[in-house]
Formats: sequence, structure tokens, C-alpha cells
Amino acid sequence: MSLIREKVRQAVGLLAEFDVDCWVTFTRESGINGDPSLVFLAPGDVTWHSAFIISRDGRARAVVGRYDQRAIAETGAYDEVAAYVTGFREPLVEYLKSLAPAKIAVNYSKDSEICDGLTHGMFLTLEEVLAEAGLAGRMVSAERIVSALRERKTAAELDAIRRAVRAAEEIFGKVAGFIAPGRTEREIAAFMSAEVGARGLAPAWAAETCPAVFSGPDTAEAHYGPTGKVVAPGHVLNMDFGVMVDGYCSDLQRTFYIREQGETGAPPDVAKGFATILRTVEASMRAIRPGVTGFEVDAVARGIVVGAGYEEFPHALGHQVGRFAHDGTALLGPRWEKYARKPLQLLEEGMVFTIEPRLTVPGRGIVTIEEMVVVGGSGAEWLSTPQTDIWLV
Amino acid sequence: MSLIREKVRQAVGLLAEFDVDCWVTFTRESGINGDPSLVFLAPGDVTWHSAFIISRDGRARAVVGRYDQRAIAETGAYDEVAAYVTGFREPLVEYLKSLAPAKIAVNYSKDSEICDGLTHGMFLTLEEVLAEAGLAGRMVSAERIVSALRERKTAAELDAIRRAVRAAEEIFGKVAGFIAPGRTEREIAAFMSAEVGARGLAPAWAAETCPAVFSGPDTAEAHYGPTGKVVAPGHVLNMDFGVMVDGYCSDLQRTFYIREQGETGAPPDVAKGFATILRTVEASMRAIRPGVTGFEVDAVARGIVVGAGYEEFPHALGHQVGRFAHDGTALLGPRWEKYARKPLQLLEEGMVFTIEPRLTVPGRGIVTIEEMVVVGGSGAEWLSTPQTDIWLV
Repeated sequence: MSLIREKVRQAVGLLAEFDVDCWVTFTRESGINGDPSLVFLAPGDVTWHSAFIISRDGRARAVVGRYDQRAIAETGAYDEVAAYVTGFREPLVEYLKSLAPAKIAVNYSKDSEICDGLTHGMFLTLEEVLAEAGLAGRMVSAERIVSALRERKTAAELDAIRRAVRAAEEIFGKVAGFIAPGRTEREIAAFMSAEVGARGLAPAWAAETCPAVFSGPDTAEAHYGPTGKVVAPGHVLNMDFGVMVDGYCSDLQRTFYIREQGETGAPPDVAKGFATILRTVEASMRAIRPGVTGFEVDAVARGIVVGAGYEEFPHALGHQVGRFAHDGTALLGPRWEKYARKPLQLLEEGMVFTIEPRLTVPGRGIVTIEEMVVVGGSGAEWLSTPQTDIWLV
Repeated sequence: MSLIREKVRQAVGLLAEFDVDCWVTFTRESGINGDPSLVFLAPGDVTWHSAFIISRDGRARAVVGRYDQRAIAETGAYDEVAAYVTGFREPLVEYLKSLAPAKIAVNYSKDSEICDGLTHGMFLTLEEVLAEAGLAGRMVSAERIVSALRERKTAAELDAIRRAVRAAEEIFGKVAGFIAPGRTEREIAAFMSAEVGARGLAPAWAAETCPAVFSGPDTAEAHYGPTGKVVAPGHVLNMDFGVMVDGYCSDLQRTFYIREQGETGAPPDVAKGFATILRTVEASMRAIRPGVTGFEVDAVARGIVVGAGYEEFPHALGHQVGRFAHDGTALLGPRWEKYARKPLQLLEEGMVFTIEPRLTVPGRGIVTIEEMVVVGGSGAEWLSTPQTDIWLV
């Protein structure tokens, strides 16, 4: 069964679970303002106003512009794909009238960006459409439906993620032999990008910062492209990197130490930092299981890092991964304003998380490990092959 | 001056022109739900809630998450880039209070998707922020500001588009020698994609349909990926293709005829179709000048095609091109419901349009030409080198 058919069937079950009559994804020019739910509903971009309407009773209908019809009909996920040339209102109003749903879930959310694909202009248009259909005031947020659809990964989705993890690990393995004093961050990133291209893959996020390479002290810390800075002995080098395989991402970080002349291993300050991060990752992994909140897991990690005498990391311990490197709603994070209610969601089986604590070793650089796990019935399972020793150059 | 500094300065002038006190772009996780205005305001993606606030008096401020600060500050476009760790509300509320704007333009529009980057969830959050700042009820649509910012192209923007047109034309020139009976649509597309990659460029829209290749009769017409269909004598082959150079796009279509044994040129039905399209493109180009509406230009083209006995094309004659292959608000299109008020906008100097009529020659295939023009002070100027004869294989 195609991914789209499988996810549309899954959505039907979620409508019953969350007591909603239909779920409407309403988008246009998805190459410009893409609703992140569209990948589960259509095989590519749509151009004109397009509505994807899934009902609790199992019916699925799309209303799209004429040129977008064929590819969507061929998914086999819809009972009917209605195509229009001049205007979407009439076919959409007529179909919604015939459904007469009491509760209509649409893709907006203050808390969760991944559930917030409906633009405000399209919300206003949909309000008009619903009023015309005699259904004013029936819209609710689809946050729970969209979250569960993304978060409860199917076997096929987990398989794609596993392949994305393996490909990223292979490339980390190759670049380990390329890193040497005198190389710049940019050269290291270019080497990895070439490996991504050679495998016919794409980076998991914008190529400018995937991989991100941070060498030594006084870096931008994160979210910044590789620079002309030269790898130097005595420094720590960390990298953040992932690839996309069949539409699914990996997201991993690895840390290297560049030995000075005569050193056989990392010096005590670097070794202590790495051991602290390693302990944090392992304790976090053991704290993950269905039914706990992400807040609790984050607190375990934050406590270890701070307890070891380091500044607390200014970000969440981990996020979900899926079609995007940052995906899903539930978050392994602190109860900071910017994270809204995301850290309070309960973890569920099938969620894929990163675990990525970080700390700074003064004068050396940033020590991070980012692993990936899937939440199983009784606890977390590794998706990545955990880094257990700092990689020595 | 960097593009971002140049566009932020341009925006300040637009605020005075459209009598608005400040323009707020409010977005988060732009890799997921990207506001299309962000490319003019920041050098890459942002992760957490981020506000970019341009004032009529020339002040420009950004409020962003800590890891996103450095790259944005380095653009030199902002007086201050405030960074937060736990929450954006306090710094944003305080700054808006200090500005006390009477009219605040934000990125939503029912009519124009390119001006509709604010998601509904973020709109609701911004409503709360403004209420907290004592500025409730002051939001207006930024449609006119965002449209003009994208549509009035600077010299640097036009230069990038010219280079994108030249690169696409070069690749069309190369593939002309590759097309032959027996080749499949997919093989032709792969040849072009390899040429794009070899130049270190990206396709102008999703790679699955860029290039789009349609061979012979009974195709999906448009918006569909190349298939295993084999190029055959007596058929017309058309292609839709563009590349992105320094963030700016080209978008062109070219038509070929595959000769049968003994034919020296295209047969009369194909020649008549091509001559009709050519005439339509030329008349449309002459109808374009500042101050006319796109509707008038579209009507000229539609009249020629229908007058020559063909079915009218089920889409607009032409759209603007810029950061996206489909860009801007003003449209060379009919007054169909789905196009809203876009065809009623007046054309302005600096706008870049495609001209792309199409018609079907029964039993042969689809004949299209898509050229690109820029609106000059007294009329349109070609950006592309117009196709004047059907390309014979």
C-alpha cells in the first residue's frame, strides 16, 4: 500500500479516536507556503486552492485544480478527486454541505508549528466557504490528529528513518578519515556534502547548515554555516548532520578531539566533558517510555549536566524526527515559554526522538552527542549506533 | 550592499508609500512553514518564534532565538537583533510598546499566496502579543507592501534572473541534440537534471516536475512528472523547465516536433498550432506596459487562440517570476474566481512575467511557448531569447 493510502487510512482512525467528523487540509501553491501535512495527502506540490477532506466514516475526497488531478487520483487514496478550472468554491461548498460535519478539524495550532500549516489568508477563505455551506463556527484545531499522524510511525516510516540514520553514520565514518589539522570547517562540510550527493540523497535540512561544523572555542555554537576556520590541535570539533531517504530524515551530532603532539587521548577537561554528555545521553534514553512527559526526560538530562558543573544547554534535550529533522509536537524539553505545551505531551509508542545534550569546554570547543531513538512498548530503542568514545584525530 | 539590506531599505520606502507604520514578519521553524517574505529579511532559516519589524522611520529590529542571532546580525540590515533563550514575548511586547504603531502590516492575504506567509496559529499568537502591548485591533494585511517588495525588482535581482534564464536556455540547447525517437520522457528529463547538477544549480521548482516533459497526445498536460513514454515520429514534445541562480528563478517552455520519415518540416496542423502560439506570444508582449491590468493582456492572448479555432487554455497567460517560479501578486490572467483580484492589479515597471499560452493539436500533442519579459518604462522587454520556430528533431 502506498504511503499516502496508508496515512489516509490512519487518519480515519484518528478522527474516531479524537471525536472529530472530518479533517480538512486546505492549501495552495504548496511550493511557496507548504502545509506540512500535504506530504501525507498528495504525491507532490499543488498549485491552486486545494482541499483534502477525510471523514470519520472512511470517505476521502480531494478538490484540486485540473492539472493537479491526475497525480493525486493515482494515489488510490481518494474516493473521488474533483477537478476545477475556474473556481474551487462551488465543488467544495457542495461536498461539505453533503457531509454536514458537526466538528471540522483544520491545520492550525499556536503551540505546534508542525500542525500549523493553514495560513491566515486561507483560514479566512475557509471561514467564508463554511459559512456558505451553512457550517459556520464548526472549525477546531487539528493539532491532535496531525500530531498523532506524524508521531505514530508506521513500519515503513521507521524503515526509511533507519536507512537515513545508516547513511548519515556511513558519511560520519568517512569524514573521520578526512578531518586533519589544517583543514577548514568549509572543506570538511564540502567533503560531506559531496558524499551526500554521490549517494543521490539530499541533506535533512538547508544545505547551508547541513552539515554544521564547529571547530574550537568561540564559535556561533549552532545554526550557522561552516566557516574558513582551521582545525587545530587541542580543539574539540563537533558536527550536526543528517540526510533524507525516501522523504524521511536523520539528525545526528558527533564530537572529535584533535590531539596535540604527543597526546594519546583527550586531555582531562575534554574527557570529563565527553563523559558527562555520554552519561546524560544514556540516562535520558533510559528515562524514555510511553506515558512519561518530555519535560521529565529533559529534567534528568539537565540535572546531570548542571550537576557536573556546566552551564545548562539553552535548548530542548531532544525533538522528534520524521519528514522534517524537527517534526512532531511532543518535545523532550523544559517548560520554557517558547516551547508552549509541547513538553507536557505524553510520549507514545512509535515516536522518534533525538537526544542531544551539549556543553562547552572552555578553550576547547563544544561537546555534543545527538543520538536517535524510537519509543517502544516498554522503553526507548536506539535507532543510531551510539557514539561511546570521543573520536580522536 | 547585501540583498537583505537593500530589500529592508526598499521596505521602509514602501511603508511610507502605503501609509503603514510598521511591517511585522512573524514566523518559526521556517524550514517547515516558511513565510515567503523571510528570504528578504534573513540569510537562512529560523528555528524559534522570530519577529522582523521594519518601521516607517527607518528603524529595523529582529527578535529571534539565541542560535539564530549571529547570522541575522551579520546582514547589517538591523539596528538591533535581540536574542532570547526561553521566551520571545517579553522582548517583542516591549519593543512594540516603544514603537506604538497605529497601523501594523502583517503577512496575510486571501487573494495572494505569496503575501500569505503568516500561519493562523501564529496570527493568534500575534493577536495576544499585540493585546499585551496595548495595540489590539491594529493589524492590517501587508499584501501591498509584500507585493511591491517582490515585484519591483532591483538591478541585482534582474541580473540574477537573467543568469537563470541563460542557464536554462543553454540546457534547452543541449537537450535538443539528445531528443530522438526511442528516448523516453524520463531519459530526457534525467539528461537535463544532470546538466543542472553539473552547473551546481538547482531546479526552479520541485525536481519531480522540473523539467516536465510531455510527448505526444493523451498526456497529463501539465504538473506531472516525466513518464516512460517513448518519443515517436509525428508527435509534438513540449517541456517546462527552469533553474535557480543565486535564489532567483527562470521558467521557460519549448516545443519540438519529431519528424516522420521523409518530412522536412512540421505538417500543416502542427505548423498552424505553432504559428498561432507564436502570434499570441508576440501580441501579448506588445500589450504589456505599466498601467494596464493583467486581465487586459490575458484577453488579447485568449482571443487569438480561440479565434484560431482552439479551445481556450485552462490557466492564466502568465505569472510573475522571482524567488519562486510563481511569484508576485499581479497576474496576466482571466477574471476567474480562483485568481481573485490578481488579474486586476496594474502592471508596474520592474515586474517579471512569463507569457505562456498553450493549445492542443489533436493526435500530435501540446504546443506551448513560455517566454519571460520584464516590464520597462514604456513596454515589455524580452528576458529570454524567444523561440521563433518549432524545433525539429
